[in-house]
This record gives sequence, C-alpha cells and structure tokens, in this order.
Amino acid sequence: MLNESAIIATVNKHEEIQRQDIEDAVKKVTVGLQKTSRVISDKDKKLTAYHEAGHAIVSRYLETSFGVKEISIIPRGVAGGYTMYKTDEDKFYISKTEMEEKLIALLGGRVAEQLALDDISTGASNDLEVATKLARDMIMIYGMSEKIGPISLKVDDVRELEFYGNEIQDEVGKEIKRLIDTAYARAMQILNTNRDKLDAVAERLLEKETISQKEFEEFFV
Amino acid sequence: MLNESAIIATVNKHEEIQRQDIEDAVKKVTVGLQKTSRVISDKDKKLTAYHEAGHAIVSRYLETSFGVKEISIIPRGVAGGYTMYKTDEDKFYISKTEMEEKLIALLGGRVAEQLALDDISTGASNDLEVATKLARDMIMIYGMSEKIGPISLKVDDVRELEFYGNEIQDEVGKEIKRLIDTAYARAMQILNTNRDKLDAVAERLLEKETISQKEFEEFFV
Amino acid sequence: MLNESAIIATVNKHEEIQRQDIEDAVKKVTVGLQKTSRVISDKDKKLTAYHEAGHAIVSRYLETSFGVKEISIIPRGVAGGYTMYKTDEDKFYISKTEMEEKLIALLGGRVAEQLALDDISTGASNDLEVATKLARDMIMIYGMSEKIGPISLKVDDVRELEFYGNEIQDEVGKEIKRLIDTAYARAMQILNTNRDKLDAVAERLLEKETISQKEFEEFFV
Amino acid sequence: MLNESAIIATVNKHEEIQRQDIEDAVKKVTVGLQKTSRVISDKDKKLTAYHEAGHAIVSRYLETSFGVKEISIIPRGVAGGYTMYKTDEDKFYISKTEMEEKLIALLGGRVAEQLALDDISTGASNDLEVATKLARDMIMIYGMSEKIGPISLKVDDVRELEFYGNEIQDEVGKEIKRLIDTAYARAMQILNTNRDKLDAVAERLLEKETISQKEFEEFFV
Amino acid sequence: MLNESAIIATVNKHEEIQRQDIEDAVKKVTVGLQKTSRVISDKDKKLTAYHEAGHAIVSRYLETSFGVKEISIIPRGVAGGYTMYKTDEDKFYISKTEMEEKLIALLGGRVAEQLALDDISTGASNDLEVATKLARDMIMIYGMSEKIGPISLKVDDVRELEFYGNEIQDEVGKEIKRLIDTAYARAMQILNTNRDKLDAVAERLLEKETISQKEFEEFFV
Amino acid sequence: MLNESAIIATVNKHEEIQRQDIEDAVKKVTVGLQKTSRVISDKDKKLTAYHEAGHAIVSRYLETSFGVKEISIIPRGVAGGYTMYKTDEDKFYISKTEMEEKLIALLGGRVAEQLALDDISTGASNDLEVATKLARDMIMIYGMSEKIGPISLKVDDVRELEFYGNEIQDEVGKEIKRLIDTAYARAMQILNTNRDKLDAVAERLLEKETISQKEFEEFFV
Repeated sequence: MLNESAIIATVNKHEEIQRQDIEDAVKKVTVGLQKTSRVISDKDKKLTAYHEAGHAIVSRYLETSFGVKEISIIPRGVAGGYTMYKTDEDKFYISKTEMEEKLIALLGGRVAEQLALDDISTGASNDLEVATKLARDMIMIYGMSEKIGPISLKVDDVRELEFYGNEIQDEVGKEIKRLIDTAYARAMQILNTNRDKLDAVAERLLEKETISQKEFEEFFV
Repeated sequence: MLNESAIIATVNKHEEIQRQDIEDAVKKVTVGLQKTSRVISDKDKKLTAYHEAGHAIVSRYLETSFGVKEISIIPRGVAGGYTMYKTDEDKFYISKTEMEEKLIALLGGRVAEQLALDDISTGASNDLEVATKLARDMIMIYGMSEKIGPISLKVDDVRELEFYGNEIQDEVGKEIKRLIDTAYARAMQILNTNRDKLDAVAERLLEKETISQKEFEEFFV
Repeated sequence: MLNESAIIATVNKHEEIQRQDIEDAVKKVTVGLQKTSRVISDKDKKLTAYHEAGHAIVSRYLETSFGVKEISIIPRGVAGGYTMYKTDEDKFYISKTEMEEKLIALLGGRVAEQLALDDISTGASNDLEVATKLARDMIMIYGMSEKIGPISLKVDDVRELEFYGNEIQDEVGKEIKRLIDTAYARAMQILNTNRDKLDAVAERLLEKETISQKEFEEFFV
Repeated sequence: MLNESAIIATVNKHEEIQRQDIEDAVKKVTVGLQKTSRVISDKDKKLTAYHEAGHAIVSRYLETSFGVKEISIIPRGVAGGYTMYKTDEDKFYISKTEMEEKLIALLGGRVAEQLALDDISTGASNDLEVATKLARDMIMIYGMSEKIGPISLKVDDVRELEFYGNEIQDEVGKEIKRLIDTAYARAMQILNTNRDKLDAVAERLLEKETISQKEFEEFFV
Repeated sequence: MLNESAIIATVNKHEEIQRQDIEDAVKKVTVGLQKTSRVISDKDKKLTAYHEAGHAIVSRYLETSFGVKEISIIPRGVAGGYTMYKTDEDKFYISKTEMEEKLIALLGGRVAEQLALDDISTGASNDLEVATKLARDMIMIYGMSEKIGPISLKVDDVRELEFYGNEIQDEVGKEIKRLIDTAYARAMQILNTNRDKLDAVAERLLEKETISQKEFEEFFV
Repeated sequence: MLNESAIIATVNKHEEIQRQDIEDAVKKVTVGLQKTSRVISDKDKKLTAYHEAGHAIVSRYLETSFGVKEISIIPRGVAGGYTMYKTDEDKFYISKTEMEEKLIALLGGRVAEQLALDDISTGASNDLEVATKLARDMIMIYGMSEKIGPISLKVDDVRELEFYGNEIQDEVGKEIKRLIDTAYARAMQILNTNRDKLDAVAERLLEKETISQKEFEEFFV
C-alpha cells in the first residue's frame, strides 16, 4: 500500500524530509518486518495478489505518478502485501491533479478485488481511510472543491465547524463522496481496459511473491 | 451464540490468534462454566431450544459458514444456551459475502422465536448488538455499502462524524437498517422453508439438551 | 406501585435473584416503612385509592400478569400507596407480550385518576418514568419495534447515537410514544369496561386502607 | 411574588414540610428583610403596585387557590414587592388543574403591567422563569400534555434527550409555549373583566404600601 | 460609547449602585485614561466624530433617554472616542420601551458611519455586541417578544436550551435579528431627518475634540 | 504571502504597534530566515512565481492597498516565497471596503495558479485560512453582512452559538462563502485583464528571485 501518511505529513508540514529518510520510514512503519512463519491461505494470497496488482497497474496509467518500485504479497506487519512507489522529490506543493490521482491509485486495490473476485474484502480498509482523509483535506484545507469554493474549513476542534453552519458540512460530505466515487470509477475504467494485465501481474505475484520495478515495467512494453 | 466478539476483534486487528486460543477463549468468555443448580422453566427451555436451533439451521444453509460444532440449551454464564461454530482458519481478510451471511446467522435465533412461538423475547439482545455493530463496521470501516460508497467513516471520537455532515450519517443509519432487515428476511426464508428441521432440532434439544456436530448433520442427510 | 426497577434490573442482567430476595427488596426499597404519623387529606386518599385500584384491576385482566398480592393506601416512604404483585419465577427471558402488558399495568393508575376524578396528578410520575424507560429498552435494546426493526441501539454514551443518524432517533421517539399511547388506550378500555369494579375496589380501599389478594379476587367471582 | 420555588420543591420531593417551616422560609428566602433606606421612584412604585395587584386579583378568581395572605409594595431583598399566599396543606399530589392555575397566577403580574401601563418591564423575569420551569415539568415529568402524552422525558443529563429524538423536543417546546400563552390569555381575561378592582387595589397599595388578607377581601364583597 | 455593561449589570442584578459609583466606574472601566501621545489620522478622527455624533443625536430624540453629558473624540483606552450619558436614577425595573430605545442609541454610531462616509468600520463592534446581548436578554430573560411570548429561556448552561427544542431557538435568532434591524432602521430615520445636525456636531467635534452637555443642547434650540 | 495574522491582531485588539515592530515581526514570524541549502524544483519555482505575482498584481489594482514593498520566490521558513506589503499607519478602524479588498489580495495567489498553470496547489492553504477567518469576523464580529445585519455573533465558546439558532449559522456559512467567492471573482477579473503583467512579473521573479518595490512599479508605467 501507499506510504500515504508520510506524504500527507509532508503536505501539511512542508518539512524537509530526505528521500532516504522516507524509504527508511516506509520500511519500518508501513511495511513492517517480513513475516515468514505464518501460513497464508490460497484464497487470501489470490486476493492480495489482485489487490496489489490493482494498485500498481492503476498507478502505472496516471500522469503524475512517479512509478512503482516493488510489489509483493509477502505479509509484513498487519498488511497482507504491499506496493512501494518511487517517492516524490523534495517539493513544496502538491497539485489538485496529483491529489485526485492519488485517490485513484488508493482505490485500485478495492476495484481489483471487485473485478477479479466479484466480492470485496476488509483488506481495503486502510486505503479507504487514507483516501477519505485526503479527500477531506482537499476540500476543507486546500479549497479544491469547486462546489465549496476557495474556503478553509480547517479547525482545531471539530466543534468549531458550527461557525460555518450545518448546511456547508452536508455539502462537504457530498463532495468527499463525489471525489471518492469519481476516483473509484476512474480506477475501474483503467482496470477494465487492462484486465489482461491485471490477471498477468496477479498471476506472476502468486508465482514469484515479489515483483521488481523492472519486472513490472516488462508487462507494459 | 456466536463467538462474534473474538471474530470481530480479528477483523479489526488482523492479529494472529491460533485456533486453540479461540476455543479456549470461547469456553471462558462466551459460554462460561456450565450451570446445573438453576431450575429452568419449560417455557424458557422451549424458547432457548428454538433460538439455538434457529442459529444452527440458518448457518447450515449459508455458503461461507464453517459448520456447527455443538448446540446446547444448558445455561452457561448469562446465556440460556449456545451454538458453537467451527472457527475460521488463520486468515487476513473477511469478504462482504461472509459478513452478510454472519448477519443472517446472528438473526436466526430471533427469527426462530417469532416463527415457532409467535412472540419474541429479550433473549436475542446480544445477537442484535453484535449484528448491528457488524453492519455498522461494514458500512463505516469497510466501505461495503453501494449507497454510501468506498469511503471510510472511521473516527476516534464520535464528534469527528461532524466532518462528513448529518445527511451522510442519516444515510448510514438507513443502510445499517437495510442490511439488518435483509439478513432478517433471508433467515426467515431459510427457516420457513425448513420449518420441519427447526421443529425436529428444537425437539431433540429439549430431549437431549446438547447436540454434537455429528448428530446435527444427521438431520440433513 | 410496581416493583419495576427490580424487574427491569432482572431483564437487563439475567442475574439469579431468589423470590425471597425480591420480596425483601420490595419491602425496603419500593414501599418503605409504613408511616402513621402523617395526616392525609380526604382528597389525596381518594386519589390514591383510585390510582392503586386502577393498577390492580388493569393487571387483573392481562394475560401475562402473575396476579395482585396486596393493595394499600397507607403511605410508605414517598409513595401515597402501593400495589404489590406476585413476582415472576426465576426466568431467563421476558417476551414482547409481557413487556407490552407491563406498560398497560403501569399506566392503569393514571388512567383511573382521569376516569374517576376527571383530572390527573403528579402521583403517576414514577409510573411514567418506568414505563418510558421500558418502552425505550423494548425498541433500542431488544429490537421489538417492527418499524425500527431487529436492531440494537444500545450505547455506552448517548453521543454514540450519532452513529445511526438523527432520523432513526426521531423514529425511536415516535415508537416510544406509540407504545405508551397504545398501552394507555388499552388500560382505558379495561377500566371503562369495568368501571363498577374500579369504584368498588377504590371504595373498599377508602374503608379498609389495605386489601389482600383474597379480598381483591372476590370482586371478580 | 409567589413562593414558587418552595412549592415546586414540595412537588418534586414530597417531603414533609410543616406550614410554619414554609412561612419561615418564605420570610427569609423569598421576601427578605424589609428595606427602608432606599428611595423608590413613583414610577417604580406604580409598576410594583399594579404588578402585585395583578397577582393577587388573578389568584382570587382561580378555583384551586388557597387565597391571598398579604400584598405589599415595600421592597424586600431584590424584589420590589410581594404577594404572599396561604400555603397548601400537607399534600401528596398536585393536580393538572392546580398547576394550570398556578401558571395563571404567576403571569398575573406581567399582564397587569401591560394592561395598566401599556408597557412591560424586567420585573416579571422571576415569574416567567418559575412559570416556564413549571410548564416544562408538567409536560416532561408529569406527562400532562395531551399532545406529548403520558410519557416521562425526565433526564439526569440534558444530553439523554437525544434518546427521544429532536422532533419530540420541538413538540415539547411548542407545548410549553402553548401552556404559557393559554395561562397568559386567561390572566388577561380575568384582569380585563375586573379592571376596576385592579385599579382600586393598586391605588390602595400606593396609599398604604401593605394590604392584609382582610383588607383585600373587602374589595370583593 | 455607552457604559452599557454597567447598565446591563444593574438590570440583571438589581443591585444598589449609587450615581457616583457609576460615574467613577465609567471613567475607569469604559473610557479609560485620556491618551495624548498617540497620533490619530484625519480619517480616523472624522469617523470617530461621526460615530459619536450619531450616538448622541439619536439618543437626543428618544423619549426614555436621560440625556447626553459629554461627547469626545479624544481616545481613551481602546476606544477612539466616547459619548457619556446621564445615568438612570436608582430604579428597580427597566421597561421594554427603554430597552428598545437603548438598542436604537447603540446603533446610532454605525448608522452615522454609513450615512456620512458611505462605508462602515470595525469601530462599532462593541456597540453591536452590547446591543445583541441586550436583544437576547429582552427575548430570553424578560419575555418581551410577542412572537416567543412571556416565556423564560434563561439557562445556566447553554445545553439546557435542548429542553425547548431547536425550532424555538431558531425563532429566537430571528427575533433578535428583527429587534436589531428595527432599531437600526429607526436610528437611520432619525439621522436622515437630522442630517444637518449630524454634520454640525461632527464638525464641532473635529474642531473642539470634546463637547459638553450645554454645548450639545445648543444645536437643538 | 501577506502578514495577515499581525494585521488581524491589530484589528481585533487596537493595540499600538509601531511600524518597526511590525516589520521585525514580519521578518521573524512570517517570512522566517532565508533558506539557501534547499533545492527547489523548476515546477515549484514557477508555481511560487505566479502565486506571489498574483498577490502583488491584484493588490496593485485595489484602492485601499498601501502598495507592495518586496516580492520574492526565495523560500523562508515553511513558505515557498512571499509578498511584503507596505503596512498601515497606526489606525483605530478598518473599513468594510478595506477588508473586502484584503480578501481579494489574499486570493490573488490561488487565482494566478489557476490562470497560468490550469491547476491549483496546496500552496494557498494559509491564504485561504486567513481569508476565511477574516470573512467570518466581518460577518460575526463586525456586523458587515447586509443579509445577517448589524448583529454580533461573537462568542467565547462556540456552543454559545446555540443561543441564536441553527438557521442563522447556516446563513452565516453562506455569507462567508459569498464574500470569498466574490473576492475570488474580482481577483480573477483583475488578473485576466492584466495577464501580460502577470506573466512578466512571474518571469522576472524566476530570473531575479526577488523584486523590489521600485522594480515592481516599473511594470505599471
């Protein structure tokens, strides 16, 4: 999965984090130590393979993505697998387009489950949490919703939202849903169009467990 | 009744719990120590027999259930009886279908009371509590409602729900009700179709007090 | 009045309370020590007599009632009088029908005041409080409202109700009112049909102050 | 003004307060020590005279009132004047009719200001506070509103009102207003009909500052 | 500006404050020590002159006003200038008419800015705060709104407003706005009719910085 | 960016802050120490150049602005660049027109991003926060909305807003949005009309990194 929390922290705080720092943090915090003792069922392995392949392939077709570094279905920490992305260079700003595409990549895992297994699972809960918070920030902190406008609904205490009335907050809720639904539809469209690649990458993951950047790129030549 | 709290804990935390651990926990926490000193009225015995038979038979017709291990109307702890299920293997994910069927099994007890006694009782209160929390998590944590969408409404403090407005929460309330009502209708349909088995299992429970997995399966040959 | 608080405690906790324990508790907690020093006005005496006769007679016509043990207009503690009921045997469950009839018995006192005195008083406040909490539990804990459905709205903190939205809670309010209004109408119907018995029992109470189970039953031979 | 707080305390707690206790309490708590050093303007004196005459005359025409003991426009404590009523005997219950008439007496002061001076003042603030709380209790504690029904909305913490939904509370607000408006209209009708007595009593108060029960009754022979 | 806080304190507490006490308090608390070191821009001086002239002239045409004592555009404390009024004698009550006229006087400063400069400023913020709280008390403490009625919505904790429902509070908000808007329109009408006096008093203030009661009265002979 | 927080502090507190104090504070607090070690991407540089040029040019066409002192795309602290304005002289009041124009200047950065890059970024988040708080104060503290009227909704605790009802607060939310949207449209109109100057100033900033007041004014001769 995406090292979203680190990226979001960067967005909010504009701190200077070096690339190596992030990679280290990613290993420790997000992916955790590799676990080998645990037996994974074939059903769970297949779900993980499609979920991670979904993230990676959707990301491959986005304009602002920096590319996939590694995909794996070896469980680490509480995650059944992971997709590591090449991180952003040291930058001050994140654009609305980058954020919208980040939402699409985040939802690629859930969409792949739906497409390939005709069922969805609890495995996407963290993706949904990160995507929802990102969509919320786009609207409430960065004023990126045309409907709500260039307004800041940033508050220290949630009760301060009362200052702006309940109607605006209902609109915010609808806009968050709209951003998420739009990203979901786009992820679905990408994976539907590239269903053969989804199956191929998932199959390779089941075979080899981990795919490098180079191996992943070979599916797109 | 179902060892739901343990299963839900697993869902939320993906911790590695061994099968034996769960069985031990189930004995201690959910079923309690067997009580023999207490006199149970015939009316209560009949209600318990139908309630537990309802859980077991509904569960028997669900695709994702791992099967019934033991049914009993001997009171343990605060429960008038219990139905023990074969537990899930060590798994990472729970699918939407599994969760929907868990709701159906949970409501089987209440439905059996309604069908056989034409009245309902306080005996289902724990089942309803677990089912409602499960339906809530399906919608708010796992984004499994098509109406609400792949969004996470997970919050640390209930006041944070204000971020998403009141309208979304009203929709969530309706979706929780819809999931529960759908599961109730499905449990009713299964028990109506298998009314003869419901009566037979309940009768056997009143006779023998406890039915093993093997004895239970004989009703379905 | 009814020893409702004890009965409700039993409902919620399924604890094993022996019959003697309840009777002792009833004497101490609900009825209090008999008071003789205080002068009661004739108007208050008449109101109490009709109020208690109302409870007792309504209860007499309910299917699930265990019968009246004693009626009195001698003040004990803060109550102007009391009606003691034969208590339930040691049971695991309370049915929806039993709860609905409990509501009817609870409202019998207020209805009798309205019928006989064409005015109502503060004397029913405790009955209304117990009845309202019982109706609330029927709907929110035991899922006994067809409108709300087999859902549990049990919460540790009232703020958790936000999880289910405001609309459901408005429906709950209406259902509580509907349960109470239905019970009130049934109590009214019973006392209207048996107005002669209401007058007779109240008159006897004013005469003798206390009526035993046997004396009470003689009105119905 | 009325020693309402004491009466309400009696209603809520059914404690045994002797007549002498109440009279003592009334002197100390409600009326305070007589003040002579302060110069009162003629305008304030006239307003007080009409205000207190309003309470007393309205009360004189109510069926459940126990009669006026003393009326005065000598300031005591924070009050510009007072009307003392003969207190209730030691009683268990207060009827809906008594409570409705208490509301009428409480509003008699404000109505008299409006009628005689064609303006209203801050002098009725305590009367309004007591009347509003009484109306609230009639509806929420004693179930005396036909619209809301025989329900108890008694709560330890105001947040518990959430259990009953917002719609019921909006209805309660309207019922409180309806009770107050009805009482105001009745007080207005009494004082309009007896405008000559209002002027006469107010005039006598301006002359003598204090009127005894006997003197007051002479206006009605 | 008006020494409103002291006046309001008197209204709420009916304490005996001597005239000299108030004048001392006014000097210290409201007006502060005279500041001479600070350079004031001509634009600010003109705004202050019109603002204070607005208060004074509006007040001059109100029936219940006790008259103006001094007007000044010499800054004291945080205020750019001030208008001192002759204070009320030691009185028990304030009438609705007096309160309505107080609102008009309070808004005279803002209205003068609008009329003379065709712009408004932050200089009226304290006037608006006092006027809003006064309007709120008229409705919620003194029952002076015909729409809301003779009801007391006085609460110790704002959450207690829940007892009366949300609809009443929305009505209160509208009534506060209506009282303020009505007072604003009346102040506008007075200053429009007396625009020549507004210009004359403001001009004199710019010339002399402080105008005494006698000098002020000469504009109206 | 604007040293808004200091200006707003002045508005709220009317404290005497000397010009030198503000300039010192601006250097330390808002702009921070100049950073040279950090590598900025060309994309970020271009965005900053347009963002700051947007602030400066919009400000240049406003009537109440005191003029631009320096524009820079050298990062200081957490900001990617800054625009310093000539500060206001020591003044008591800020007019509605000044505040409206401050909103326009604040939104100039975001508008320039939209116009020149056809995308928007997180870089405007602080501008939006300051603008929203300013709009909120205009309406709730200074009574500058014609729709809401000359009312003060200033509260110590956000819960006190309940006193005014929910409807008014919904209106406030709409008015805040209207003020911001109006300012945004005006900034867009200015930059659209002067697109050539926007490109020229941004280009010069990319070349020279910092532009002095004199250099900036040369674009307008």
